[in-house]
Amino acid sequence: MKEFCIGIDIGGTNTVLGVVDTNGNFSAENSISTKKYKKIDDFIEALNICIQESLDSIETDFVLKGIGVGAPNGNYYNGTIEYAPNLNWNEIIPLSNILSKKFNVPVVLTNDANAAALGEMIYGAAKDLKDFIVITLGTGLGSGLVVNGEVIYGHDGFAGEIGHTIYDPNGRMCACGRKGCLETYASATGIKRTVIELLNNSETKSLLNEIPENELNSKDIYEAAVKGDKLALEAFDYTARILGLKLADSIAYTSPEAIFLFGGLALAGDYILKPTKKYMEENLLKIYKNKVRLELSGLMGKNAAVLGAAALIWKEFD
Amino acid sequence: MKEFCIGIDIGGTNTVLGVVDTNGNFSAENSISTKKYKKIDDFIEALNICIQESLDSIETDFVLKGIGVGAPNGNYYNGTIEYAPNLNWNEIIPLSNILSKKFNVPVVLTNDANAAALGEMIYGAAKDLKDFIVITLGTGLGSGLVVNGEVIYGHDGFAGEIGHTIYDPNGRMCACGRKGCLETYASATGIKRTVIELLNNSETKSLLNEIPENELNSKDIYEAAVKGDKLALEAFDYTARILGLKLADSIAYTSPEAIFLFGGLALAGDYILKPTKKYMEENLLKIYKNKVRLELSGLMGKNAAVLGAAALIWKEFD
Repeated sequence: MKEFCIGIDIGGTNTVLGVVDTNGNFSAENSISTKKYKKIDDFIEALNICIQESLDSIETDFVLKGIGVGAPNGNYYNGTIEYAPNLNWNEIIPLSNILSKKFNVPVVLTNDANAAALGEMIYGAAKDLKDFIVITLGTGLGSGLVVNGEVIYGHDGFAGEIGHTIYDPNGRMCACGRKGCLETYASATGIKRTVIELLNNSETKSLLNEIPENELNSKDIYEAAVKGDKLALEAFDYTARILGLKLADSIAYTSPEAIFLFGGLALAGDYILKPTKKYMEENLLKIYKNKVRLELSGLMGKNAAVLGAAALIWKEFD
Repeated sequence: MKEFCIGIDIGGTNTVLGVVDTNGNFSAENSISTKKYKKIDDFIEALNICIQESLDSIETDFVLKGIGVGAPNGNYYNGTIEYAPNLNWNEIIPLSNILSKKFNVPVVLTNDANAAALGEMIYGAAKDLKDFIVITLGTGLGSGLVVNGEVIYGHDGFAGEIGHTIYDPNGRMCACGRKGCLETYASATGIKRTVIELLNNSETKSLLNEIPENELNSKDIYEAAVKGDKLALEAFDYTARILGLKLADSIAYTSPEAIFLFGGLALAGDYILKPTKKYMEENLLKIYKNKVRLELSGLMGKNAAVLGAAALIWKEFD
């Protein structure tokens, strides 16, 4: 009989789920709004219905092996979502327990970046790798660290917050309440802040001047860079210089074989990859030089967050 | 029959070995000069004799379970010492192979800080811990990262170089050829550099003014601080501010339960521990605050490097 997992990606705006096989093929897909449910109980009721409908839509016989969930501030050990700043519910939510009782299958939950790292290992570019890092460059900078074939969860389930290592103690204000975190520079939001700073402080003409600040996004910056816009290229270089420096630090921690970039800013491809690689190499300790691959995720363009969440279950049965 | 291991600590000046049981009791101790042997073959011949003499000196019957070696730039996977900057032999030395053939026992080799971390786990303050970091504050800053009960060696055997993460890209020149590495600030040598800078740039009277620069060491700075010397206290505060900040980063990587400080500078006890703890907490992401113990190593005053090297063997048989 066919074996399926459900992967659920809980984002600030939407919650997306897929029923997925071991090869990453989707048999059903569905989503609900995350934002519209102000009470967690209402969200869970809607999620339960969404899961049940997806299962009911599958016409072949199958075994449901489990449900994997990727969520901001997801705690692997407790199966809880804890005080996630981008979700409506500022509390501890024992989501694994709730779903496990409801559907009578194992539920594994972790943060979205750890799920992305597992997705890379099971479905993506890290299939044969035991030591690698996945960096997601979205609203923030998420990271999943894999060492010796296992995701690092740490003592409390919250390991792998490279986005909140500090680049400049007197630097940009971060949503976490501290200053100068890496993600305030190296993320889709970070490069937007850089462009706004550059526009305010330079006389350089730029295509980006024509876009209202509240509409500007990393895709606009990429498109301007492709057209040779100097200010956009400068923004990529600035972002890469900081990201490259901090990736050199990351390598000194876990000495990975490869680092994969994913997320909105990674869609800029070589515009972010090449300068980041250059600055990373410049800052590496000699023993690490020319050893570590820096590449785009193998899941670009796929529903990587859902695949990653599903991978949580396949990994448990591995 | 009694079971023993040999632990060997290869330092820039001396190589020290001990024959040790599972409880960390020494049945024999011995040492040779590292510095005086310009050729690696001569060093190995002297080391072989030293090992044999130590074994011969034991009067009870025993089984030798193996030889553990801690060495700068020691590679766990290959059992090699690779281009160690503080040793005479700027080459790749397959020491594990050589010793294993000679004494017909398993030989495990890694860098000195990884050995220290294992020593902490088997004989020291980390006996019940699965996730912790050991920081050795000596000539440089060494680090051993333990995650889920295992030392992180990384893809190439060189993981855990926190001393060479960058604090300030425009900062102090490091022996590694780069600028602003953490160890140029936070180490026995780093605090000495800080004191010299402070003496050159301030009018503050200090007991440390009376000591010639080339004789000044971290013990002098500690003793001045105990006497209330303002400049010495300022040097500890400056060192702690940088170390605390970077330990907060380290926690964001592996989320450990505890961090243990070891080495010459750690002998200053609360003078380094208390301010480092304060700055570490100030810089922690909220989810990590008031969770991570910062303590002195449980092996202070013991021959921790040799115990750590011996622990490499006990760990293999664990």
